[in-house]
Formats: sequence, C-alpha cells, structure tokens
Amino acid sequence: MGAEHTKRRKGVLAELAGRKLDCLLVTHPANWYYLTGFTGESGALVISWDGATLVTDGRFTVQAKEETRGVKIELQQGSLYAAVGTFLRKKGMGKVGYDANHLTLAQWNALRKALGSKARGVEATGLVASLRMRKDAQELAVMRKAAILAGEVLEGVLKVVRPGVRESELGAEIEYQMKRRGASGASFETIVASGPRSALPHARPTAKKLRKNELVVLDLGAILGHYCSDMTRTVHVGRASKRVREWYRSVQEAQEAAVAAVQAGVTCGEVDAAAREVLKKNGLEKYFVHSTGHGLGLEVHEEPRVARGQTVRLEAGNVITIEPGVYVEGVGGIRIEDDVVVQAGRNEVLTRVKRDLIEL
Amino acid sequence: MGAEHTKRRKGVLAELAGRKLDCLLVTHPANWYYLTGFTGESGALVISWDGATLVTDGRFTVQAKEETRGVKIELQQGSLYAAVGTFLRKKGMGKVGYDANHLTLAQWNALRKALGSKARGVEATGLVASLRMRKDAQELAVMRKAAILAGEVLEGVLKVVRPGVRESELGAEIEYQMKRRGASGASFETIVASGPRSALPHARPTAKKLRKNELVVLDLGAILGHYCSDMTRTVHVGRASKRVREWYRSVQEAQEAAVAAVQAGVTCGEVDAAAREVLKKNGLEKYFVHSTGHGLGLEVHEEPRVARGQTVRLEAGNVITIEPGVYVEGVGGIRIEDDVVVQAGRNEVLTRVKRDLIEL
Repeated sequence: MGAEHTKRRKGVLAELAGRKLDCLLVTHPANWYYLTGFTGESGALVISWDGATLVTDGRFTVQAKEETRGVKIELQQGSLYAAVGTFLRKKGMGKVGYDANHLTLAQWNALRKALGSKARGVEATGLVASLRMRKDAQELAVMRKAAILAGEVLEGVLKVVRPGVRESELGAEIEYQMKRRGASGASFETIVASGPRSALPHARPTAKKLRKNELVVLDLGAILGHYCSDMTRTVHVGRASKRVREWYRSVQEAQEAAVAAVQAGVTCGEVDAAAREVLKKNGLEKYFVHSTGHGLGLEVHEEPRVARGQTVRLEAGNVITIEPGVYVEGVGGIRIEDDVVVQAGRNEVLTRVKRDLIEL
Repeated sequence: MGAEHTKRRKGVLAELAGRKLDCLLVTHPANWYYLTGFTGESGALVISWDGATLVTDGRFTVQAKEETRGVKIELQQGSLYAAVGTFLRKKGMGKVGYDANHLTLAQWNALRKALGSKARGVEATGLVASLRMRKDAQELAVMRKAAILAGEVLEGVLKVVRPGVRESELGAEIEYQMKRRGASGASFETIVASGPRSALPHARPTAKKLRKNELVVLDLGAILGHYCSDMTRTVHVGRASKRVREWYRSVQEAQEAAVAAVQAGVTCGEVDAAAREVLKKNGLEKYFVHSTGHGLGLEVHEEPRVARGQTVRLEAGNVITIEPGVYVEGVGGIRIEDDVVVQAGRNEVLTRVKRDLIEL
C-alpha cells in the first residue's frame, strides 16, 4: 500500500500548488489513513514540499513507524495543537491549509496561538474529501467485498427473524456474524426497528420483541479492510396488508428510479429528485423525511451528499448509497438501500440481496 | 428520567446566571442526552430562561418527542447551524454560551453568520462536562452494572484464550457476549493485542494467532444504559519468564498505589504520580508512555484527565479509570485497568476481576 499513499500525497501536492499553499494540515483520522496508512486515533499530518510528517503522542509512535512508509514521525511534546503549531512555525511554513470541518474551535485557537505571527491558516476545507470521492480500482475491490459481506450477513439473519425475537438479539447477531466473516466491525450501530419503531429512521435496537404483522427495518454495514458498506432491507413479519404492500412498491420503485439515474455527469440533486418524484406521484413524498443517499468509503458518510438541490456532478469512481424510505408515525417505516458505484458509461450496484418484499 | 433531566437543566441555568449568559448552546450528543434524554445523533439544544428547545431534522423529530419531557422540538430548516443561528436571533438572545470543544470551525462560522450582529457567542467550554463529572446515585448504579458486565465477559473469554486463537476472534467474541448480556455495544473497539503487538497501547485486533509464551492485553468496555465501562487485564499464554513476572508485579503495584491514592481532595496529578513513582523505583518509568487514567461516564473518555501535573481535585461522584502500563517495543506490553468511584471518605472499585497474573 506504500505506493498508493505516495501517489495520493502527490495528489495533495498538486492541489497545494494550485492554491499556493506551503503545506496542508490533515487533522482527520480517515484522511491521514488515506494518505499514509496510519490507523492511530490521535495526531496530525503535515504534507509539504519537504515531505510528510506525522505528529503524534507516545501511544502511537511505534504503530506509526510500522504502518507508514516515507513519513517522518514527530513525537508530540505537550498538547497536540500546541505541538503542531510549534512544528509548523519552526519549519517556517507561511500559508498553512486547514480543514474547517475537522478542527474544533478550541483546536483552532490553540493552533493559531502556537503558529505565531509569521504563519497563517488558509481554509482548504474538503481538499482531501474531494480526492477521496474518486475511488481507485484497489479501493473499489475492497468495497465490493465489504458490500457482499454485509449482504451475506443480512441473508443469514433473515432466517432468525420471527415473532418473539428481540431487536437487540438481531442487532448482536448481525454484528457478530460480520466479525466472524472478517469485518473489523460495523460501519455504524446496526438498526433493527420493528413495528411503530420502524417509523424512526435512526432507531437503535431495543429489547422490544418482534410481533406478527410488523414491518422490520434492518440497516447494517460492515467495515472490511477499512472500507464501509451500508445497506437496508425492510421485511414484514407475516402477510403484509394491501396498504403496506403499496407503500413498499412505491419505495422500491423510487429506489430503482434513483439507482437508474446514477451515472457520470448527473448531479446528486437529480438522483435525489428521481426517487422523490416517484413517491410524490404516489402521494407519499411527505413521508420521505431524509435525503436519498450519501457518499461511502473509509467513512460511512462522506462526500457527495445525494440530497435535494445538490449541484455536485457524479464522476467515475464515486460510491454512493441510494436509500429512499417512507415513515408513517405510529404505524411503521420502509427503507431500501444499496451501494452504487459510478463507472464510465454505467453504474454498478455493489449490494446483491434481492429487493422484493420479504414476508417471514 | 424526566425529573433527572429537569434537575440537570436547572444546574445549567445556575451556571448561566453566574456567567451572565442568556442561553447555552449544547452541540455535543452526550451533553444533550445528559440534559434531555434525546439519543439522536444530529441536532443542537438551546437552554435558556424560557426553557429548553431542541433543533433537529426530520429524521429525529418523532424520536425527540418520544424521548424528552418539557423540551420544545424545533424542526430544522436548511443546514443545522444556519437554523440554530436564526432561531437564536429570532429569540433575541444576546449572549450565547458555546463549547469550543464541540463546535467545528465550519459550524462556528455558519453559526456566527446566522446570529447576526446583535447576538454574540461567549465561550462556555466544559460547562456541561463539569456537571457530568459529578455522577449522581442513579448514574453510579448504572455504571456499577456496566463494570460488572464487562468483568463477566472478560472472565468468560479467558476460557477460550489459548494458542491458535486469533485476536480478531477473541475481539468478536467479547463484543458479542457484551450484547448478549444486554450491552448496547462496546465503549470502544475492543483491544486484543498479543506478543510484540501488546507493546502497542492502542492496537486493534488482527488476524494474528496467539502463540505460546506471549503476553495478551485485553482492553474492553461495555455500554449499558448509555454508560461506559472500561477495563484491562493482561494474561500470559504459558508460563511467564522471570522478567515478565517482574514487569507484571511492578505494573500491579503501580496500579494498586494509584487506586489507593484516589480520594476526594487529591489532585489528578497526584494520582498519576502515585503510579509513576512505583514504575520509576523499578526502572520502568520510560516504558509507561501514556497517562494513568481518564474520567468515565456517558463517554469512555471524559473529564477529568488523570495525567502528569493535572491540578483538578477529585470530588465525590467522580469516576475515573486507573490504567498504568509498561510497553517494551518488540517484546510486549502489560496494562491493568479498573474503574474507580470517588466516594465521600473512601473510594469504590467498580471492576471486580482479580488482578494477579493469569497464566493460561
């Protein structure tokens, strides 16, 4: 992986040249992992024309040496941002690019104080996030496996979805099976939401038992080789009513329309609208209370946002989720979610579990 | 729990009075959970003399209504910090307290823009963190259970620690058993680090198999009823060498000395020094590369820090970890960690697993 990281750091340098910056300060763990392979949770990476330097504390220095190639490791003295500011000042950096999404106000204040008067921060928010949007073949190969793993776990767990099982038991089973199959963990806390609780898009599993005639939303993702998958299926315990079937059909149609809209050159807002229009036609738009999807990669939510009015245009290598849903307070909710790659001239759906309504 | 939240919000109002602030903006999920019971991941809570208002988006409004008592729910229009700023401006708030640790620079910029010229932000960093340091009886009752649960899981998993088992298998088993016993999840990604990898204080479990004559560090914690536990034991596969036994005895002695030092009125730096002195006496201080502990509660790392030179004085209701260790690059590491409550005139160790060297 050393060669990949070197290539990515060259991509950063090209951006620095265009913006006339002396260095980029990388303060977000997923970003420094992307650029160096370092998996520690605390530190800051400086990328400049002199090379890459990782400032981190004693808990992580051995690990940093093992995990990176061509990166200098600087042992942090004192608090992190004071140490980083001092390092940048000593190196004579003038214009220091930073990411406003990945610095707290407290960190920023500490950094500015240590930088002194000669160096100055210049906003370079989203620079690495933009590079990360375009996945290379190696990243896509890992993401394919992460998506397949999640699908296999979901199919396995469907065998134990039945009245009397607790949401929390299903959640535990799902995450255990992911790890058994090699995942380092779940991309996010698995959602198992049954009956009226399925109307909460972000419900955590509770001790509630599944009952007959309930919708169950299962939303899960695995982290495999540092990359995330994210998928949702909604099943019905027992035979669904006519109304539930109609809702399900509308969500399925909306999801298919949005997946079909995914291609290079299309805006994220257009993809969102494709799902929304189907639900509108069926009088369900008001029950669709979130956006259609989001970018996926080292993090479960990354750029681009697939939401109303987003003007970002998709390009080859982007990976996004497509996950419309309807949520009727007090009754239940339905969501279907897949992971989709933008490929030159086509798209590729990574998640391979069938989408028709499953009645268990 | 409604009464607890009302009481805590009154604690915030008392602080606002002392600081002459019109309101506090609460931007950290653990803080708004502490003050309202809302478990959603996105939003912002405003506490003022007019009451409490939670601004959140359509994914969380139903959930917010269900989970809170006496809190107004404001549906967010547009991006979160623009909506919050507009809300505060319309309410005529003049001095708005904020926490610099829980606002990104980008959020701060969006907020300031929306606040306009009449309202102004006043730093109130750590206000809620300070309140959260002093746990009440109800919180301690939950934390006792979370600690016992982690201990039971650790004791259970020791039965399967043997040569040939993978670190990742042990990690998966630990987290599964936590959930089977009612935990909502792990407080942090479980650490299982064997052989030379045990010298990395924050190693993630890998596919590496345990071998005979290796140290294995097991660091785990469960979240139960929203509160975290955090404990570490180090075991040896096979009979330990004289050198390893000596290291172990030193760490154990250092840990006991620091636990014994925990009492109301003592500074966190003094507790840290108690551990460090024992290791120094045995010539091992240079291998102790992190601080002695940290506060524990709704989050696995919270106030106070138990580190060198910290002048914060412990008081009744504080819960901290005590976790000295030694890490010898290329050889291995040893850490012992327990959770300790400061009680009036005494301390209480929550974790109940024995600390002597276990050879398996």
